[in-house]
Amino acid sequence: MAVITAVDTFDIRFPTSLSLDGSDAMNPDPDYSAAYLILRTDADDGLEGHSFVFTIGRGNDVQTAALRALRSYLLGQDIDALLADMGAASRRLVGDSQLRWLGPEKGVMHMAIGAVVDALWDLRAKRAGQPLWLHLASLSPEEIVSLVDFRYLTDALTPDDALRILRAAEPGRTERIAQLRAQGYPAYTTSPGWLGYSDEKLARLCREALAEGFGQIKLKVGANLEDDIRRMRIARETVGAGFPVAIDANQRWDIPDAVAWVNALAAFDPAWIEEPTSPDDVLGHAAIARGVAPIRVATGEHAQNRVIFKQLLQAHAIDVMQIDATRVGGVNENIAQLLLAAHFGVPVCPHAGGVGLCERVQHLSMFDFVAVSGTMDGRMIEYVDHLHEHFVTPTAVDRGRYRAPEAPGSGAEMRPASIAGFTWHPEGAA
Amino acid sequence: MAVITAVDTFDIRFPTSLSLDGSDAMNPDPDYSAAYLILRTDADDGLEGHSFVFTIGRGNDVQTAALRALRSYLLGQDIDALLADMGAASRRLVGDSQLRWLGPEKGVMHMAIGAVVDALWDLRAKRAGQPLWLHLASLSPEEIVSLVDFRYLTDALTPDDALRILRAAEPGRTERIAQLRAQGYPAYTTSPGWLGYSDEKLARLCREALAEGFGQIKLKVGANLEDDIRRMRIARETVGAGFPVAIDANQRWDIPDAVAWVNALAAFDPAWIEEPTSPDDVLGHAAIARGVAPIRVATGEHAQNRVIFKQLLQAHAIDVMQIDATRVGGVNENIAQLLLAAHFGVPVCPHAGGVGLCERVQHLSMFDFVAVSGTMDGRMIEYVDHLHEHFVTPTAVDRGRYRAPEAPGSGAEMRPASIAGFTWHPEGAA
Repeated sequence: MAVITAVDTFDIRFPTSLSLDGSDAMNPDPDYSAAYLILRTDADDGLEGHSFVFTIGRGNDVQTAALRALRSYLLGQDIDALLADMGAASRRLVGDSQLRWLGPEKGVMHMAIGAVVDALWDLRAKRAGQPLWLHLASLSPEEIVSLVDFRYLTDALTPDDALRILRAAEPGRTERIAQLRAQGYPAYTTSPGWLGYSDEKLARLCREALAEGFGQIKLKVGANLEDDIRRMRIARETVGAGFPVAIDANQRWDIPDAVAWVNALAAFDPAWIEEPTSPDDVLGHAAIARGVAPIRVATGEHAQNRVIFKQLLQAHAIDVMQIDATRVGGVNENIAQLLLAAHFGVPVCPHAGGVGLCERVQHLSMFDFVAVSGTMDGRMIEYVDHLHEHFVTPTAVDRGRYRAPEAPGSGAEMRPASIAGFTWHPEGAA
Repeated sequence: MAVITAVDTFDIRFPTSLSLDGSDAMNPDPDYSAAYLILRTDADDGLEGHSFVFTIGRGNDVQTAALRALRSYLLGQDIDALLADMGAASRRLVGDSQLRWLGPEKGVMHMAIGAVVDALWDLRAKRAGQPLWLHLASLSPEEIVSLVDFRYLTDALTPDDALRILRAAEPGRTERIAQLRAQGYPAYTTSPGWLGYSDEKLARLCREALAEGFGQIKLKVGANLEDDIRRMRIARETVGAGFPVAIDANQRWDIPDAVAWVNALAAFDPAWIEEPTSPDDVLGHAAIARGVAPIRVATGEHAQNRVIFKQLLQAHAIDVMQIDATRVGGVNENIAQLLLAAHFGVPVCPHAGGVGLCERVQHLSMFDFVAVSGTMDGRMIEYVDHLHEHFVTPTAVDRGRYRAPEAPGSGAEMRPASIAGFTWHPEGAA
């Protein structure tokens, strides 16, 4: 029997605020950070499970403390038993009655639990010698359903509903795996659109995005309407009519403001309005969707758990679902999100960027394509060209498409030199 | 100029799981705990600001780490300037862009910010020589409105709406203060109804509640329907027809189960069903409210912020709003909740119990009576007779009513011996 022998945590911070990469209407000066976790066992294989929660700077110490608090749930545990029933492993942590009080199922504690669950998935995929997307897509519909916590979902999605969706996607899995490996998965880029960039840089980056083959670009909006009109005009003139240009307000508005502001930009044909208001406001998103139609509404990177996604879908509040790889309770809850989206017929276009989110979320979209929705229609993964050099298996994006990763694991593993070089110490340092 | 010179934090835990006090369908073995905070200044008055976040055990270390992470926002700050503009002080913390990523406005980080805000309120009320309820009720409507963050509320409640509510309650404040001091505020008790208690103990505690003059009792339900029917029958037979007996499922059910289970108890005339499902599920609560009417739905102790409360009211999902003193962003956000409830005409019956929640939340209900809703009709504060002995100014409940506290401050201050005696150290001890 092999057991977990160590759970090492690291508070890793990159000083991205110096270049205004990542600046938007709500986050003027992020320092992209990761509360990072390595699980080690005494198995002969020497394999480790890596994972992290992405944050934007201050508070990364609190997130790391939450990871440390979970050590006692892991040390000495039979790793083979944990990996053999990932549904049970996930439910044991998410459902812990005392930890649950700190959410329930939201915020720092829930994200920490998600990171632990995902470190287990990273290790399991490495043991299987498969990239996570392929590992998940090799499971039977029944195995996949056993991973999902259906608590609070059954008024919208039952285990039987999920089984039907997964069984309908079983034929063609092999062909879709081959298609993914040959053609990759569509990407769009947010790199041109950060608020801190000059008009010249915006236009240049729009041209580059087009030349690089991306299928959509995205602009941050919401700080100043005149600026947004000018920047949208530059973007639209640069990319031409018909090319998708999404806009993203990062929760900047109240409901009436959102409707007015988006309609003031309607002439530039935005592909979607992302995060118009609080991620908690299901009814607000529904009101905005009615008020700005036919412009589509997208949200999800800050949606705290499957209960919020369920409601966003029930209320017809979103046209595009944006899942995040480190916001919720790990891969298990991400699978619940993919099943909900498939059940309601809404495309999933994951949030990425930050630190390592591209590396991780690509596995979820590719699993979705092979085993859940069975389609790439209307689907794209966000892409931002930052900080990939710190990962052992960095994302590869060619001609606007994510290449299917082949390395075993979840993509979360950071290079040892990056972990060592950017671990933050309150006393000073990098 | 006086500045903040120290922010001391304590991880305080009481071993309540030994007696099954506090056991319910989701929380079988809570250890009532407090992530505790003391603000000290170099002012001559020697006064301190005390506050805490209530938790139920494991994870209290993470909550305490979140309090510690806020020290750098406080140390060296001009305390007079902070206390003079509590709206700005609160918004600076709640709106911090990097900390916000960890919520936003929910979970561990938001509760920590709320505790800091409330430590400032405790100090401010002590400096004014007033109990917090009276201190708040002495502010002008304009000052009260300046405390509230209306972001994400204006589709339901604007600053002008709030001002109208507060101005309408200005006449009669003096009389209501006198009435509170003479008669106190109604209480109900949950002490009879914990799941871990025997039938005999349930019946005995029901009789005692009646004898003590409480206006309502509450039973925990949701673990086993046959047990619930038996326990409800015992309670109903003991207290007699017409006496209010509320039931509380502590988030145990999915939507269809909630409707069926509550209707199976309808013959015993429950006064309300509390927390039937996930606190995040606005649409679910609305469906339950339709499915169990005329039985009323109550929730809120786990509602993460004002955006959830806004939607619960907009969707007609709750008939009773249950605010909590340590779940949200402090007194400022509690005031937003009181204004929302008044605007929608829904009574507020706060959650209490735990550690020190009775001591704290009474101030909010009394402020509401004097300056916001202007009424006690249909309003009660929960009361549980646990752990009051640890507080410097413990709650006084006589003949089923909370006596209006007169000691300066918010009621949060714990006795030094209790802080010292129950501070938890990972290595062992109490």
